[in-house]
Amino acid sequence: MNIKLIVAYQGTHYLGWQKTPMGPTIEGVLEKAVSQILQHTVKLQAASRTDAGVHAEGQVVNFFTEINLDFKRFQKSLNSLLPKDISILDIKKMPDHFHPTLASQGKVYEYSICLGPVQLPFQRLVSWHVFYSCDLHKMQQGALFLVGQHDFSAFTNQKQANNIREIYTMEIESVNGGLKIRVKGNNFLYKMVRNVVGTLVYVGCGKLSPFDLLDLLASKDRTRAGVTAPAHGLTLKNVLYEPLY
Amino acid sequence: MNIKLIVAYQGTHYLGWQKTPMGPTIEGVLEKAVSQILQHTVKLQAASRTDAGVHAEGQVVNFFTEINLDFKRFQKSLNSLLPKDISILDIKKMPDHFHPTLASQGKVYEYSICLGPVQLPFQRLVSWHVFYSCDLHKMQQGALFLVGQHDFSAFTNQKQANNIREIYTMEIESVNGGLKIRVKGNNFLYKMVRNVVGTLVYVGCGKLSPFDLLDLLASKDRTRAGVTAPAHGLTLKNVLYEPLY
Repeated sequence: MNIKLIVAYQGTHYLGWQKTPMGPTIEGVLEKAVSQILQHTVKLQAASRTDAGVHAEGQVVNFFTEINLDFKRFQKSLNSLLPKDISILDIKKMPDHFHPTLASQGKVYEYSICLGPVQLPFQRLVSWHVFYSCDLHKMQQGALFLVGQHDFSAFTNQKQANNIREIYTMEIESVNGGLKIRVKGNNFLYKMVRNVVGTLVYVGCGKLSPFDLLDLLASKDRTRAGVTAPAHGLTLKNVLYEPLY
Repeated sequence: MNIKLIVAYQGTHYLGWQKTPMGPTIEGVLEKAVSQILQHTVKLQAASRTDAGVHAEGQVVNFFTEINLDFKRFQKSLNSLLPKDISILDIKKMPDHFHPTLASQGKVYEYSICLGPVQLPFQRLVSWHVFYSCDLHKMQQGALFLVGQHDFSAFTNQKQANNIREIYTMEIESVNGGLKIRVKGNNFLYKMVRNVVGTLVYVGCGKLSPFDLLDLLASKDRTRAGVTAPAHGLTLKNVLYEPLY
């Protein structure tokens, strides 16, 4: 049986999704809990291997088991066993061929920024504190140049053979004296969302003009783009699938 | 010079506002930081001595100093020195007779509840996880009986000579699959807000009827009211003063 989990987590205390001997990871903790309940080893696959410190509200994970599960009970057991910063929001049986990454049609990420001299304590673990003010309109203008299909070499810290990706939409809105940047795309390069955010903040505070982003894309030169925005402002909101899944 | 601070904090890692030798408190940490910058001992007074685990977005604190402060610089130094879960939002010079408790005309508290089987990890430190569903309409009906001037003996864990207090308004709204309860009152007895919330949850899940609250008030019997809602769902939103302050 192919089981799909929708998982939410606060990434603060983890070294990201993927298992490493260096310390606790979401994959490690979740795999151990599932295996403990099912009394057999499982291998998890996730739609996104989120970086250390990144959060998720709708990570999609699957695993296989021969056990006939009572889903409601299994979810309750799993949530009781897991630490409070990881929650299973939903469990569903999928067709055997379902794979969370291969079946995915895209992902939605949200980045939170707190602007101004003081950050509210409640936001410190989930938003980037940018001390200066940002011009929202210029950032929105800049974002328009990044929407669509482009070679995003200038926005990744680890180039691949093919760096062409598509950003479907990017919305930037002003929320409680800060900003929310919501990016929907088909697939993202390593650290691409955080590099896009860092570059848009450069545009917002006047270090780059919105039009510079055109040159930047064309240059394929990472050193000309903005900083990598810190991990703790980023949240994987949800993964997009065909209505079938 | 009488200096007023507006302070926000996440109470999770503190034993409340008031200093105790048992462990870290907001008062202790803040007093130490202010004294360190001013190079003389200060004595803080706060509008509300919040309990262990309770948060604040607008705690009002004052202290006296003879030093002529550059407020902007002092705020920056203080925020740099303080741990990230305590922030100074504002600093202002007040008339010498201003006292944060004595001058206060009331306080606004907000209580957050997460309803249903699963709590999002981001909410775990700032909202009470109530596993069952609650009838919002009944809770709103019950709340109406508590608004106004009453003897709140049934809602305090520590009776005083005079237990008559006034709740100005109480609003309960449904937010993201949970509830927000906002209480504005002239003054509150020890644990009164949390006892009111716990009792309203009893009403919401049918353990008490809204009309039982009338009897409960009249009985002055704490054992007949609901549980004390946990501290971590409670936030001091702001303290009310005459427009003068």
